[in-house]
Amino acid sequence: MPRKRTTKKKTAKRTPKRVYTFGGGRAAGNAGMKNLLGGKGANLAEMAGLGLPVPPGFTITTEVCSLYDARKDSYPAGLAADVDKGIAHIEKIMGKSFGDASDPLLVSVRSGARASMPGMMDTVLNLGLNDQTVKGLAKASGSERFAWDSYRRFVQMYGDVVMELKPESAKEVDPFEAIIEKKKAKARVKVDSRLTVKHLKELVREFKAMIKKRCGRPFPTDPQEQLWGAIGAVFKSWGNERAEVYRKLNNIPFDWGTAVNVQAMVFGNLGDTSATGVAFTRDPATGDPHFYGEFLVNAQGEDVVAGIRTPQQITKRASKLWAAENKVTEKKRRASFPSLEEVMPDCFKELTGTAAKLERHYRDMQDLEFTIEHGRLWMLQTRNGKRTAASAVRIAVEMAEERLINRDTALSRVDPDLIDQLLHPTIDAKADKQLLAQGLGASPGAAAGEVVFSAEDAEAAAKEGKDTLLVRVATSPEDIGGMVAARGILTATGGRTSHAAVVARGMGTCCVVGCEALKIDYAKERMTIGKKTIKAGDWVTIDGTSGEVFAGKVPTVSAKPSAEFRRLMDWATKARKLGVRTNADTPADAKRARELGAEGIGLCRTEHMFFEGDRIEAVREMILADDLEGREVALAKLLPYQRDDFAGIFKAMDGLPVTIRLLDPPLHEFLPHGHDEYVALAEKSGLDVEKLEATGATLHEFNPMLGHRGCRLAITYPEIYVMQTRAIIEAALQVASKGVSVHPEIMIPLVGEARELSILRELVEEEAERICAAKKRKVKYTVGTMIEVPRAAVTADEIAEHADFFSFGTNDLTQMGFGLSRDDSGRFLPSYVDKGILGADPFASLDVDGVGQLMRIAVDKGRGKRKGLKCGICGEHGGDPSSVTFCHELGLDYVSCSPFRVPIASLAAARAAIAAKTR
Amino acid sequence: MPRKRTTKKKTAKRTPKRVYTFGGGRAAGNAGMKNLLGGKGANLAEMAGLGLPVPPGFTITTEVCSLYDARKDSYPAGLAADVDKGIAHIEKIMGKSFGDASDPLLVSVRSGARASMPGMMDTVLNLGLNDQTVKGLAKASGSERFAWDSYRRFVQMYGDVVMELKPESAKEVDPFEAIIEKKKAKARVKVDSRLTVKHLKELVREFKAMIKKRCGRPFPTDPQEQLWGAIGAVFKSWGNERAEVYRKLNNIPFDWGTAVNVQAMVFGNLGDTSATGVAFTRDPATGDPHFYGEFLVNAQGEDVVAGIRTPQQITKRASKLWAAENKVTEKKRRASFPSLEEVMPDCFKELTGTAAKLERHYRDMQDLEFTIEHGRLWMLQTRNGKRTAASAVRIAVEMAEERLINRDTALSRVDPDLIDQLLHPTIDAKADKQLLAQGLGASPGAAAGEVVFSAEDAEAAAKEGKDTLLVRVATSPEDIGGMVAARGILTATGGRTSHAAVVARGMGTCCVVGCEALKIDYAKERMTIGKKTIKAGDWVTIDGTSGEVFAGKVPTVSAKPSAEFRRLMDWATKARKLGVRTNADTPADAKRARELGAEGIGLCRTEHMFFEGDRIEAVREMILADDLEGREVALAKLLPYQRDDFAGIFKAMDGLPVTIRLLDPPLHEFLPHGHDEYVALAEKSGLDVEKLEATGATLHEFNPMLGHRGCRLAITYPEIYVMQTRAIIEAALQVASKGVSVHPEIMIPLVGEARELSILRELVEEEAERICAAKKRKVKYTVGTMIEVPRAAVTADEIAEHADFFSFGTNDLTQMGFGLSRDDSGRFLPSYVDKGILGADPFASLDVDGVGQLMRIAVDKGRGKRKGLKCGICGEHGGDPSSVTFCHELGLDYVSCSPFRVPIASLAAARAAIAAKTR
Repeated sequence: MPRKRTTKKKTAKRTPKRVYTFGGGRAAGNAGMKNLLGGKGANLAEMAGLGLPVPPGFTITTEVCSLYDARKDSYPAGLAADVDKGIAHIEKIMGKSFGDASDPLLVSVRSGARASMPGMMDTVLNLGLNDQTVKGLAKASGSERFAWDSYRRFVQMYGDVVMELKPESAKEVDPFEAIIEKKKAKARVKVDSRLTVKHLKELVREFKAMIKKRCGRPFPTDPQEQLWGAIGAVFKSWGNERAEVYRKLNNIPFDWGTAVNVQAMVFGNLGDTSATGVAFTRDPATGDPHFYGEFLVNAQGEDVVAGIRTPQQITKRASKLWAAENKVTEKKRRASFPSLEEVMPDCFKELTGTAAKLERHYRDMQDLEFTIEHGRLWMLQTRNGKRTAASAVRIAVEMAEERLINRDTALSRVDPDLIDQLLHPTIDAKADKQLLAQGLGASPGAAAGEVVFSAEDAEAAAKEGKDTLLVRVATSPEDIGGMVAARGILTATGGRTSHAAVVARGMGTCCVVGCEALKIDYAKERMTIGKKTIKAGDWVTIDGTSGEVFAGKVPTVSAKPSAEFRRLMDWATKARKLGVRTNADTPADAKRARELGAEGIGLCRTEHMFFEGDRIEAVREMILADDLEGREVALAKLLPYQRDDFAGIFKAMDGLPVTIRLLDPPLHEFLPHGHDEYVALAEKSGLDVEKLEATGATLHEFNPMLGHRGCRLAITYPEIYVMQTRAIIEAALQVASKGVSVHPEIMIPLVGEARELSILRELVEEEAERICAAKKRKVKYTVGTMIEVPRAAVTADEIAEHADFFSFGTNDLTQMGFGLSRDDSGRFLPSYVDKGILGADPFASLDVDGVGQLMRIAVDKGRGKRKGLKCGICGEHGGDPSSVTFCHELGLDYVSCSPFRVPIASLAAARAAIAAKTR
Repeated sequence: MPRKRTTKKKTAKRTPKRVYTFGGGRAAGNAGMKNLLGGKGANLAEMAGLGLPVPPGFTITTEVCSLYDARKDSYPAGLAADVDKGIAHIEKIMGKSFGDASDPLLVSVRSGARASMPGMMDTVLNLGLNDQTVKGLAKASGSERFAWDSYRRFVQMYGDVVMELKPESAKEVDPFEAIIEKKKAKARVKVDSRLTVKHLKELVREFKAMIKKRCGRPFPTDPQEQLWGAIGAVFKSWGNERAEVYRKLNNIPFDWGTAVNVQAMVFGNLGDTSATGVAFTRDPATGDPHFYGEFLVNAQGEDVVAGIRTPQQITKRASKLWAAENKVTEKKRRASFPSLEEVMPDCFKELTGTAAKLERHYRDMQDLEFTIEHGRLWMLQTRNGKRTAASAVRIAVEMAEERLINRDTALSRVDPDLIDQLLHPTIDAKADKQLLAQGLGASPGAAAGEVVFSAEDAEAAAKEGKDTLLVRVATSPEDIGGMVAARGILTATGGRTSHAAVVARGMGTCCVVGCEALKIDYAKERMTIGKKTIKAGDWVTIDGTSGEVFAGKVPTVSAKPSAEFRRLMDWATKARKLGVRTNADTPADAKRARELGAEGIGLCRTEHMFFEGDRIEAVREMILADDLEGREVALAKLLPYQRDDFAGIFKAMDGLPVTIRLLDPPLHEFLPHGHDEYVALAEKSGLDVEKLEATGATLHEFNPMLGHRGCRLAITYPEIYVMQTRAIIEAALQVASKGVSVHPEIMIPLVGEARELSILRELVEEEAERICAAKKRKVKYTVGTMIEVPRAAVTADEIAEHADFFSFGTNDLTQMGFGLSRDDSGRFLPSYVDKGILGADPFASLDVDGVGQLMRIAVDKGRGKRKGLKCGICGEHGGDPSSVTFCHELGLDYVSCSPFRVPIASLAAARAAIAAKTR
């Protein structure tokens, strides 16, 4: 956006202008002014500035939002005059007057924040109608039915949004819709469009009566009063509950505020030459570079988004695909669901031309809203389209290959947090499964969960740790909390641009929409599909790619990344400075991670191996032994297992470094559970059961996290590390003799004092030398340490004298740095995040301000003593994008994370490198 | 020591001289060369340089110790030649030749480290004797008996020390002594001196035979071989076990090494005109400024120190006092125990003159060793005398008042660790007690313990947490471990300069010696006193000041500091920069601490108040309440208690600041123990018992130290801190209205993030303002925080924005900084200290290298943001002298410690300020 820079300068100099007009081939604002005009307002101005057919209007700035006092319904001085001027601007271009009884100007009032918050805030359409102007509209439009339908919609929407006449619970039917349903039943018609003018007039009267009764004040007839009511409602909606949930989820600060856009109405519901639709310049689900969208003839925009009517496809190609998918015959398709390309070829051409122009202009996939009024195209909105991770990857890669953007930009376009879903399991094709129904795949991945029928239930079940599938006729913004909580979302109605689909894709939650076979009974908490009944709590599995719905819990298989994904990952690998390793404890994990791009193992936890098979008995024997001999006997049993484990991992990582952490957890973690296990152990080992239990009891610790663990174990029982060293070195020699290139890095955990490391390093080296001498062969290895104790960070210079490398164990460093037990903090940590005391859970996202400082001290001191000391991170944070960014800034050599997060870390590292370049 | 500076220059220039000679009115070294010559060698050189009668000799430097390789028995090149020259130097002055069969030169070989380590290393006397030279000695001395007695002693000592012929257990009698006892029994004599020449010759023969049999090699006859054997033995003894224990106890590094002093023998056992003794220029037990010492006629030095014979007093005054104490008639005293002043008045005069000269020269109380040979005085050693704390205080204060030293020096002379014993309880005069026996009070204080008869038993019992009293006939250096472990030491033999007395005083352990009424049977593990039998495990109480021994566990009363002590404390208060506060939770503690010099309360733990009386029930009700109302009802019950507590403390601290920490520990610490207590609580509170138990169960934490505690509780339950604030402010207003000057400082614990503090500060301020507004009065208070979480240290700049003060909670900061649970580390921490991984227990002495760095970061960042921010420490370390020194260096405003450690902290702070001045 080349204008951005000049704009900023202008912004700095401007007087506090509060209303920006647009339309008629000109605009006071532009796309660079998102902070002030909101995304929608800025883009409307930009489009108007580009000469595109945008209905004229004006934007009240986001600054007014924070000045607006909802309690007093008061605005900054002078705003009313500015709004009057704005209305005059629209009147002039449209040649109509606001409140004119003969040919009234109607306007829409919409919110528009900096960041897109689809459906989160309120909108009012057709504003300006009353019992007088409706007659003028009927005359001017030539359709009394249209005028009264518009009036009906306006009263309904205004009553809902501005006057806040709401259903009293999530399970109650919308009160306006209830009146309509009653009316339809009485009129014996099935669809709204069959209602007559008389019916519509009755509906308006009945709506108004209900409003007066339930709201305690009449519906306002003065268009000016209507306008200010709507403006106030939009500003107020910034603070409503669902907007708050969305902001929290997306880290949007409250003080950004929303703008208000007032714009001339254009109508898609003026008969068969009118239509309204939404479109994407590329497929937001797959990234397919074809123009993609949906529309409805003779409808208003809300009809498309709300997912009540099944919309038609814009292109003929998409239409045919849709028909095939939905088993609609070509004949029926052409009759009932023809494409825009077929029914309005001129408008289609203008629309595709405009779309291409906008995509080139913004250099990104656009999400458009348009209306066709009597065959004339009006562009209502453009914005960078939300997309699935798969789509984001494909679009970014293809745009880079089209030279629309460069590779760095392509990398920056893909949010590392989202690509997680590309790597998530899909439903196992070979699995035994029972197809229940077919819907539209709206957000990819697979999800199984216990069915719940309300957002509240989804939230409650999630708190109990249950996996849930939220099933709704359609979702609405009120459902946002439950959508976050659910594993997957399934709706009976709606298309791929429905609320459920858009929100689910944004969150990366698997979603199937438009599954019309579902008959949902909220009151009885069950749904029927054909003859089958599913009750709340039953398991159901959905496939967000295919749109299939299965009974029960269906097994899944791991994802296969696309060619574009692999290309993007290649670019990421080239762009990043950080190495990316994996945390893997088994040859299988190691192999998988390597396929996903891991450049070595950053953390191989030897203790996990202790639980496999019947090794645990030898481990227990070791722990409970009375003396050195007893321990050595038990360790000798463990040696061959460990050696085989290491050999397997070395083979899987042929040519790459493998960091092996020696035994870390407190010994009591391995103890038998209960008397029976002690008895069994006593029988197997021939030891006395009472003595074993007594020894076990002495291992109890008050704060095991701060207890006898990590290298402290080896200071007390050196023979444990000796055995592990032996297993590592013997395994290395063994596989090396078969031509495998082995690079073991032996890592000592929980070092807090340099002497611990120097003593244990000597122990490791002595044992390694002993073995090499005995076998008359050599193996190259290094010895390093975890930095996970705060004291280690501040004494890193001393520790570096004995360490070939540092690896930050940020899980423990966070626990000790914060004085926060991961196991216990659940009782208060969530409220810390809710209250804004902490920006994020420090176990999920590295606490840069605190723990990060300890890391910086350690890196500075460590490298100060030992130039170029290799430093990595192997805590969970190694796979968290914002933490990876910090690791890049810190100058670490690598991050290490779980196998599936390797691509995420790689991309995050690339983006951090790119961001640093451009700073 | 005015020579010190010039010496250092000389030292820097010297070639590596390894042997320093002294004697004949000159010396190559001086007192400033302790590091090189050891304390004994440097002082011998200094004395020789002063022209005092020192037997000539030479010192092999401490540097040779580390070059000496015990396995190869090898020395640096050229040493042999230097030693030869040293021997020649002695020969020249003494006019005798080493190994001369007609009139042999005999030498002593003694250790001498930088710091005095009495009895810890080995000594060989009379070296140079063999079957030939013994005849020459007999001729030259005119006493065949003396010659053979000397030879007998030499063979015995050489066999023990150099050839390592030792008793095989602590309970076995010394094998040489066993032979002597047998001989005496056979000869029907009671004392050694009654053995005839024939007996002595037999003894030498029998000793040699036993040596050959048990050591596998013969006793060496060549004086050169004898000499090098003894030198090697002394060097080797630096590494022996008891020396190691002593070094650890006194923080003496291994690499200091010991020097070896070879010196011409002079004999105190040449008949009735010969004597040997030890003396102090002032009383080492009380500080009484009278010359004080003990001697034995016709004896060698070891006889005095070993405590086998009861020694005589040097001054007539002391002799009479001794007689009175021991109920010895004046007639018997003059006959059997006359003073040196009476029996050798000339020598006495010369000795007291020399002593006065040495004290003036060294400006400190001297511990002297001397021998009188045929009426001629020889000074064998001088060194600064070890002393009790009481004595140290009196000597320092009186020397300052005598203008011998200045006040800063006086303060530096008193080890803060030792004055602890001056503040320790003494036996309650009014207590019902049963006197068992009377010994000599050798180290003040009172101690009660279960009797043990061996050092091993004392160590074993101490590990079980038992208080023990170590009872021995006499202690020996082998007993050091048990002496450290015991509460008190009681010996049947020995005087105030015996091994037991010297070592106990050094350690500050209460000790009674020379309690001859004790009949100890090691084998049966019991002792009899008259008709009374005391078995191992029985309780006995000793008074280390009076020397009394009581049956059972006698009650004690607190100490009353002497006038000198109070004067020294006044000087300390003036000299220190650090303020000294106390940790006190009750008015009584506060009052006691104030009497001991506390300048405020640095830590008042409100939770301790929760356990008093039946308050705990209200606390439990609060914790287990379902909701805010329930908690508020319970808190309302606690309010009056807390208010009264604070009012009492404010009154006790009238005019001084009182830092009150709001509730800190995890709530589960207050929970009922077991079902019955739950039932009782349910009955009292009217709540449901099952529900109470269920709630209690949810409070379990895996790592409570890192759990829901400190300010985290108040983030979740603000009402707790609101109640506490109310109690503080209401109490302050209440006592202020009675004219008390109140200075509350409200302290928020466990802050890890600035926002925690800002939220809680606001909470406290709102409540305080509410109360003040309601009562229309004001109270000045501040709000600060503990710095005890590592993250708080590194984000101290942000925290300082909301804190009026910082108080370092170094207990928790150590736990979290080290990742070390105080409750669990007992299993491995002692071995960390033993293995030298840690210099000291970091919970006892602040870990300056690690935790100290976190503190420094916090102080720098905190004061960087808030200039002059008040910083203190309230962890246990606030009363540990070396930690106090660090706090001074860190520039803290105050330290806070338990009441009895206030004088210790004050003195340590003064010494730190003085040390900083002189740097």
